[in-house]
Formats: sequence, C-alpha cells, structure tokens
Amino acid sequence: MHQIYNTSLSLLTDLYQITMAYGYWKMGMAERKAVFHLFFRKHPFKGQYTIACGLQYVIGFLQNFHFTKSDIAYLKTLKGNNGQALFDSDFLSYLQQLKFTCDVTAIPEGTVVFPHEPLLRIEGPLLQGQLVETILLNMLNFQTLIATKAARICKAAQNDAVLEFGLRRAQGIDGGISASRAAYIGGCIATSNVLAGKLWDIPVKGTHAHSWVMCFDTELQAFEAYAQAMPNNCVFLVDTYDTVEGVKKAIKVGEDLRKKGYEMLGIRLDSGDLGALSIKARELLDAADFADAAIVASNDLDEYKIEQLKKEGAKITVWGVGTKLATAYDQPALGGVYKLGAIQTENGKWQPKIKRSEQVIKTSNPGILQVNRFYNSDNQAVADQLINELGDTASKQLVAFSENAPQALAENLTASPLLVPIFEQGKLVYNSPNIHEIRTKTQQQMAYFSQQKNYLVGLEKGLYDLKKQLLNQS
Amino acid sequence: MHQIYNTSLSLLTDLYQITMAYGYWKMGMAERKAVFHLFFRKHPFKGQYTIACGLQYVIGFLQNFHFTKSDIAYLKTLKGNNGQALFDSDFLSYLQQLKFTCDVTAIPEGTVVFPHEPLLRIEGPLLQGQLVETILLNMLNFQTLIATKAARICKAAQNDAVLEFGLRRAQGIDGGISASRAAYIGGCIATSNVLAGKLWDIPVKGTHAHSWVMCFDTELQAFEAYAQAMPNNCVFLVDTYDTVEGVKKAIKVGEDLRKKGYEMLGIRLDSGDLGALSIKARELLDAADFADAAIVASNDLDEYKIEQLKKEGAKITVWGVGTKLATAYDQPALGGVYKLGAIQTENGKWQPKIKRSEQVIKTSNPGILQVNRFYNSDNQAVADQLINELGDTASKQLVAFSENAPQALAENLTASPLLVPIFEQGKLVYNSPNIHEIRTKTQQQMAYFSQQKNYLVGLEKGLYDLKKQLLNQS
Repeated sequence: MHQIYNTSLSLLTDLYQITMAYGYWKMGMAERKAVFHLFFRKHPFKGQYTIACGLQYVIGFLQNFHFTKSDIAYLKTLKGNNGQALFDSDFLSYLQQLKFTCDVTAIPEGTVVFPHEPLLRIEGPLLQGQLVETILLNMLNFQTLIATKAARICKAAQNDAVLEFGLRRAQGIDGGISASRAAYIGGCIATSNVLAGKLWDIPVKGTHAHSWVMCFDTELQAFEAYAQAMPNNCVFLVDTYDTVEGVKKAIKVGEDLRKKGYEMLGIRLDSGDLGALSIKARELLDAADFADAAIVASNDLDEYKIEQLKKEGAKITVWGVGTKLATAYDQPALGGVYKLGAIQTENGKWQPKIKRSEQVIKTSNPGILQVNRFYNSDNQAVADQLINELGDTASKQLVAFSENAPQALAENLTASPLLVPIFEQGKLVYNSPNIHEIRTKTQQQMAYFSQQKNYLVGLEKGLYDLKKQLLNQS
Repeated sequence: MHQIYNTSLSLLTDLYQITMAYGYWKMGMAERKAVFHLFFRKHPFKGQYTIACGLQYVIGFLQNFHFTKSDIAYLKTLKGNNGQALFDSDFLSYLQQLKFTCDVTAIPEGTVVFPHEPLLRIEGPLLQGQLVETILLNMLNFQTLIATKAARICKAAQNDAVLEFGLRRAQGIDGGISASRAAYIGGCIATSNVLAGKLWDIPVKGTHAHSWVMCFDTELQAFEAYAQAMPNNCVFLVDTYDTVEGVKKAIKVGEDLRKKGYEMLGIRLDSGDLGALSIKARELLDAADFADAAIVASNDLDEYKIEQLKKEGAKITVWGVGTKLATAYDQPALGGVYKLGAIQTENGKWQPKIKRSEQVIKTSNPGILQVNRFYNSDNQAVADQLINELGDTASKQLVAFSENAPQALAENLTASPLLVPIFEQGKLVYNSPNIHEIRTKTQQQMAYFSQQKNYLVGLEKGLYDLKKQLLNQS
C-alpha cells in the first residue's frame, strides 16, 4: 500500500478489540491459536455478484502493524469506571513489542465472490486475530462495495467508458481515494481524483466546469480561451446557458481547433434531459463532421439511470458517475462480518466454533474454511464449495445454502481454491498484481459471472454435517 | 488538524480544477480576485436543521496547502490527446511556488445552518479558489452530514447516551475517523474508534463482543473471566445464546463483582426484540438491586428505530449506533456545492455572478455573501438574512426563499454575522474552539432550533433585486 498515513493505524480499531485482547492476555489465552473468517451474507444492491476488493490496503496495514510509543501512551490514559487505569502496564509493554505473526489467506481482488465465502481467513494467536478485525472489515467492506457498484454501472453502460468523479461528495479523504481505486478495479476507465491517480496509478481525466464559463463574458469566449490554453484536452461543457446553443459554439471552436491541427475530444452535458439532448448534440456534431467527438454525460447517474437512458436511445458515449458510485448511494455499506471459526484448546486441539443466530442462514460456518471453485472441461466455473480443512475435504457432495439435501457434483469437474496465501507467520508471501491486472481480472470474471443466474454455492457435505451437529449442541 | 497524512493533500482534487487553473494562468487571469461560496440547497434527511461541521479539517488542509516536488513530478507525466504534456513547465513552477493567500470566512462548527447559507466563503486569486474547491466540499459535505445525522439520533434518544461505533462499515479509513469526530460534535457521548479518540480527544468506550463469549466453554465462564480481567469496565453482552439467561448470568457475575468492591456497568443487547428484551432485562436487574446498571442496545439502530423503541416503552438507557450513523445510511451524501459569487474585472471592479439553473431555487446567489442572524430582545434567533457585502447591507427587508414579496423584520432585532474570519491573506486568524466546546454549542443550538418550524431564512431585499436583475439579463 502507498503509505499516505504518517501515524500507525493499529489504533484504528474498536476499543472492545483491545479490552478483549487484554482479557485474553490476562487469562493466558493471548497466544492460543484461533481462526477468523471475514465474509458477507448477501450480495449488495440486490445483485447476483460481488467483486472482492481492498486486499492491497489490508496487506499495507498488516505489513506495518505495530503499536507506537505514542499509541501506548494514549492507551495508558484510558480509565475504567473506578477511575483506575483500564490496562496494566505489563500488557501495554506486551502490545508495544507485539509483531504480526499470523497466516493470512484471501481471495484475490477482482474475483467474483458469493455470500458466506470467506474473503479473508486469518490463523494465528487469538489476540492478534481479534485486534485486526475492525480495520480489515473497514477496508474490505467498503472497497468490495464500491468495486461491485462500479461493475454494475459499467455493465449498464455496455461498452461505453465510465469515469468516476465522486470525490466532492465522498465520505472523507480516504473515502474518496479508496473509492477511486475500487471504482477503477470495478471497471471505470479513469477518475477525476488526482491524488488517487498519483497514488494508485489510475488514469485521470478532467477539463472544465461551469465556473470556467462564468469567468468570461460569453460562453464562446470561454470555449475559445480554453481551446487556446489546452488545445489537446478539449471537452466543452455546453449546458451553462442553453445546451443546444452551447453545442453549436463547441463545434465552432472545434473547427478552429482542427485548423490548428488539434481535434476536439467532445462535449459534456450536465443537466436537463440527457437522452434528448444527447441525440440532438449527436446530430449537430455528426453534421459538422465531428462523428468521433465524445458525448460525455453526468448529473446524478447510476446504473438504473444509465439503463433507462440506453433504452431511450441516448447517444451518450462516456458516462461520468460521481456521488452515486463513490458512496454506493443506494446501499452505502456492505454488511461484512468477521467470525471465529475455530480455536485450539489448551492441549492444542482445534475446536470448531459457530456463532449461532435466530436465522440459520446467519449462523456462521465452523472450522478452517477454504472455497473450492469447480470448473468443467471447458474451464467454466460451475460451482463454489466451502470446505473445512479440519475435516475431510475431498467429497464432491455439496449442500446449497437454504437447501437441506446434498447434491453430487459431476466427477469430471476440477477444483481450484479461491483463497491463496498472503502472509505466512506474519511474512508477506503474496506477489500483488498491479491495479491494471486486477481490473482486467474483474472484466474477465464479470463477462462470465454476470451472465450466470443462481450460480451454485454451498457447503461441502462434511462441513454441513458438522454445522448441523454444532447447532444441535447446547 | 491532526496530520495523519504524510503526503501533501493538494492533489486531492478533481483534475479539472488543475486544468482550469492552468487555463486561468495562461489567460493571465490566475491572480484576478474572485469569491466562491460553499453551500447546500436542502436539509439532509428531509429535516429542518443542519449542523455545520468539518471546518477544523479545512483549516488543517489550507494551512498546509502546497504542491510538493513529487506532486509536480506527477503532474508533469500527464498527457493530452496528442500525446504532448498537458501542462507547461512554467505553470508547474508557478504551482510549486504557490502559497495560499486567500481570505476565508466561515460559519463555526456546531452552528445550526440553513439551505443557501454559505458555510464558507473564500476570496482571493481565482486560481487558488478554484484549486481548493473539491477538497473543501469533501470535508464540509461529509462532516456536516454526519454531525446532522448524529444530532437527529441524539434527539430521538432524548436524554439517553448515544455511542457511535460505525468504523467497521465506514467508508474508508478517514470515512471512519471523520465520522467519529462529526458524530461526537453532533451529540454522541463517545466512540468505539480508538484512533479517533486519540487524534481528536473523543471519549472511547468498549467492552467485549460475541467472539469473547465463543472463546469459552460457557457464557458464565466468559463473563467471569471478563470480570476478573477488567472488573472496572464490565458491560456484559448477553445475547450470544439466550438473552434472558444471559442477563441472569450477568447479574450473578455482577453480584460477585460487588463483593469485590466493583460495580457492573450494565449489559448489552445486540439482537432480537430490543424493546421487549430491555423491559425484561430491566425487571431482572432491578429485582437484583442493579437499578443503576445500564441497558445498552445495538443492532442496526437509527433515529427512526430509536423513536419506535421509545414509543414501545423500551428500557434502553444507552444506544449504540454504527453503520446507519457513520455512513448516513438513508442519505449518504450532502449535496453541497461551490459557486462563483463575484469576480473582478481587469480594472479591479467586482462583477457579481450567478450560476443559473432550470429551477430558480437552484440558481446561486451573487455577490460577496454574509449571513446575518437576527435576535429578538430575549436573545432568541428569529431570522437569517443573506446579504451582499458589495451592495447595501443594512436593510431589514427580507425575501424568503420561494417567496417573491419582501417582508420587513422588526426594528428592535439585532443582527450578528454567522460567518467569521478564518484566514486573512492566507494567515490563520481563527482560534478554534476545542471539540468539547463545539459539541456544547451544537447542543445549545439544537435545544432551540430543533423546536422551530419554518424558521425564516431569505435574501436581503437588495440582494434579491440584484439576483432578479442578473437572471433577466442574457
């Protein structure tokens, strides 16, 4: 990860993680081995797919995991209800010397994932697994949400380019930066966010706003001035006064540009009836021999509005999407959770654990989990099977979620594990793909999975039986 | 501002701000004086009030505004559509030497504000005002949104304590940190976010989660172990298995604690019918002489659910609010905008400007704006009047938004300006109140304004006439 923070982020956690860590330490349980899984229970946006994203942030965080002197000094100031310090100084010394030593496996960014599949699994000292819960959820929940939203928007836009420009309404500084990153991974071609572009090697785009036009006496003067200043980056925003008149002025300036050897990139519409205006603008542009000029549209767009505009025959070629993308406006949080899957007894024997819930579907899955993705002989994915590495993992029996009867997978399928090693005993062992490779992976996965209805996902039979057994206990 | 970022944030802007800056510079307009106003057009959450928040972040950003060598090197890499560099190297040198020299006035954090009122006004070189637009919007939009959401939630909770714990679902790292800050300003008593606590001096709270209980063989053992480890911070989460049984075990451990001279703080409910369970828990606790024990509730709460639970007679005393607060779930963005109000001609004469829109209400207000808040002889605010400092500002005639006829304000009212000086020629002149003072201000303002229906807000008559005149031109 780029290190944009000059403070340790180890305190970026809920206080209860530290009080629990303290309790484990006091009870002599701090180093007992435990496994946690991070997963979500429902696709966001009532959709059929979710794009895993955010792992690179997690890697950066875990590589730098440590408590600074200043962190420790702060924890020393915290008090309980009797006015006494909350934490022993011996515990704080322990924290200060703490090094991250866990094994982490995770599903690479850009992979299409399904409910209940662990996006990340962490195995190591109980105390460490507990301490990092909150920040791992923060990073993976949000970026997975935004990458998925972007993929949905890009799908609605069919083969058109989608630009992300949500920074001004994004939720905070990093809400903007990480949204730009996830949106690019999800399929956008560029962002307006210059710092995100610099930090994450994302293409950046931008030309001018209404304020540019307002600084001149007339719209034509504004376009002419812009063309003079930046002839190689001309997309004229045509709706400051009257859109159709604006298009005509853009054409006039485009013709002047052409005489000087430059080509106008296009025009942008930011208000009014985008469908009708784009059709009119296309006619005018084509008639003036600007068939290649882009028609960029923006103004509160999302996948639903883009679909609608496509249906209306809008001649928009580039979609600028801001607030609705960068905040995932219709569902601004992914409900990812982080649950204990197993813990070792004092004798070092693994005990699988479930967190039960009123609804069986919300009950977590026990064990040390992996996901096998099964492929047919055409190398097409046909099913995902959650397996428990503590049990027998070879069965090709699968119990789909919300089903009770197992079904047999075809014998000729081959399985490949979705979670791959990221850290081994605290040491990074993963070669991160670059952001463009991740984006390409998303597109390949989307091309296939966005066409699948009711893709088969379930528990390996032995895991299902174990879960039932644990549910019937106590 | 705390400096948690070790990179300059000057590139945290939309590329079009920099391309426009380049255009102004090329046209010799970079240093021409301009005024921009930042405002929103509608209260969030269909509400009647909005709490200004985020100014402290803006101050931190503007104090450190500069382009680093690395920023400039990045800008140098950007190319136009002919493959040539987007920016002249002379312009990049200009940026590298740029110092922030504007005057900034703003409404202090914790103030109740209304649509169309500038939260912030910036006056100075056109290029500078343009460059900082995006980040100022990012900071003020989001924190104002969250402070307002928190104020709504605290109002619904009446005099009960509200805790914010949204970090795990917040939108990115700073989405979490700045949400915790704004939530505290809006009225929460504490956050779970330890780093926010450290950086912003916010009280932090937390005890234990389900995972703690799951690490022990029985719930009773889990509570006992917790009480042993941290007798001065005991809020037992009682719903891991059976809530009522959990309450009974908490009472048992609370009795043991009391024998040792400690007092159990309370219990927490995190699932099920929170109303009914809280009533049952209160009975059990009271019967066991734990009348002071808090009943903390959490699980997808917001102001609507809290109101409902209050109506049902829930015996909840502390409300833990996460996702719905930290992401402002039902409206995750405030639509704040940043518009040119006036610009000087080459001769140094101010020209007022409007950005017209299809809807008159969306048309921006021209001039150099201030807001006068009028108080009656009981020192109660009765009206806010937008004035244009370029014109006559003394009239007590006011035209309410969506009205056409002016009304006269009573003669005995006294006016006080809402926007106060923050920077003068780039120099910070504002003594920021501390976060607790800001929070107190919010509470004082909320006590009054949340009771006002249709508080009078409008344009000073001369400003209204100027706007009409500009609308009729061109």
